[in-house]
Amino acid sequence: LVSVLSSAIIVYRLPWTWKCSKLLMKFIHAGLNTIAMILAIVSMVAVFEYHNARNIPNMYSLHSWIGLTAVIFYSLQLFLGFAIFLLPFAPVPLRAALMPIHVYSGLTIFATVIATALTGITEKLMFSLKNPSYSESPPEATFVNCLGLLLVIFGVLILWMASRAHWKRPPEQNAKVLRPIGGTPDGTEAESTMTDGSNADKSDLRISSEAARKQNLKLDEAGQRSTM
Amino acid sequence: LVSVLSSAIIVYRLPWTWKCSKLLMKFIHAGLNTIAMILAIVSMVAVFEYHNARNIPNMYSLHSWIGLTAVIFYSLQLFLGFAIFLLPFAPVPLRAALMPIHVYSGLTIFATVIATALTGITEKLMFSLKNPSYSESPPEATFVNCLGLLLVIFGVLILWMASRAHWKRPPEQNAKVLRPIGGTPDGTEAESTMTDGSNADKSDLRISSEAARKQNLKLDEAGQRSTM
Repeated sequence: LVSVLSSAIIVYRLPWTWKCSKLLMKFIHAGLNTIAMILAIVSMVAVFEYHNARNIPNMYSLHSWIGLTAVIFYSLQLFLGFAIFLLPFAPVPLRAALMPIHVYSGLTIFATVIATALTGITEKLMFSLKNPSYSESPPEATFVNCLGLLLVIFGVLILWMASRAHWKRPPEQNAKVLRPIGGTPDGTEAESTMTDGSNADKSDLRISSEAARKQNLKLDEAGQRSTM
Repeated sequence: LVSVLSSAIIVYRLPWTWKCSKLLMKFIHAGLNTIAMILAIVSMVAVFEYHNARNIPNMYSLHSWIGLTAVIFYSLQLFLGFAIFLLPFAPVPLRAALMPIHVYSGLTIFATVIATALTGITEKLMFSLKNPSYSESPPEATFVNCLGLLLVIFGVLILWMASRAHWKRPPEQNAKVLRPIGGTPDGTEAESTMTDGSNADKSDLRISSEAARKQNLKLDEAGQRSTM
């Protein structure tokens, strides 16, 4: 689950995806997240069935509370992401306004899933290790502790990759991808703005080209972040 | 500990600190982090003494491993922060280069401390609740679960505040603060650049003022992020 989630997060940062179209990349992101959601649901059903079969109460532990919170927000995130960023109906300003929230809540859910895993590991070790007990540090305990620590390190690295601006998809690449499509509302908008810039008075050239460059940058940014 | 840490994180985002000088704000940040470090050391000594007094082995749990990792990185962070950002010896480019790492590792340590607290809470509930057990959801269990969930929500809010660009100290304010000081190397640098801008040829006014504005912005950014 954590590895599928992390793949979904960093798909926009991987050089090989920069060669994909924007739309394909979004499908990969949405697809990986859907797989992660299915895994989460399967694992939750398994837990409830296991608890019911053994007459263990459900949802009593902090692990379960945090985990359920994460799953609820994750399904909300998936639904809103699908409705706003994948379906072609939401207007660009709405997408641009919601993108920072989408990104932050995605990263937060990822971190919360790791925290859930850590509390789950702690619980499991305390339940399962009886003779020798957890406090006697049998090899399993050391092994699983290492796993937990690696999970933290892995999360830190993924969040680092996801939050670095210079690991974003290069904007030039995006402009090249956007132009041939042209049929999407954003493509058209970009084209018309670029034309506005190049039709300007020659005497004002330096200023207008500067303005056009900035507009392009802004558009690239918007295109990269919030368009089809 | 978590509240002191979070105060140290968001001190740069609080409107009342925008009225402080840059240096005072850094002292508040460093001071709060020092208090948090002292609290962390006191609590660790208490844990080791408690374990030793009761003949409980030390450092066997995942909670302890993650916690110790966080404390080690936190002391490194504190030492490097002091040496590079508080002492006046490090050159500005070094400060600017290390600032994103300082910020990210600070936020990561904060998140790791919350994860440590959650595993610690899980452990404590499982150790302490025996009759009725944790799985029977006595009021204490529900209460402490709520506490854990609130801790997660609190962490999410603090990290949101810390990662929003528009909640940064406003650059204009910073420029105003920098100018009267003037004695610091950056103050001087900012002054000279501003003068460069205003001494430019009048025929090129629109372009140069634009350039100056951008230079000021860049300097403000650098000043805000990496200078005394």
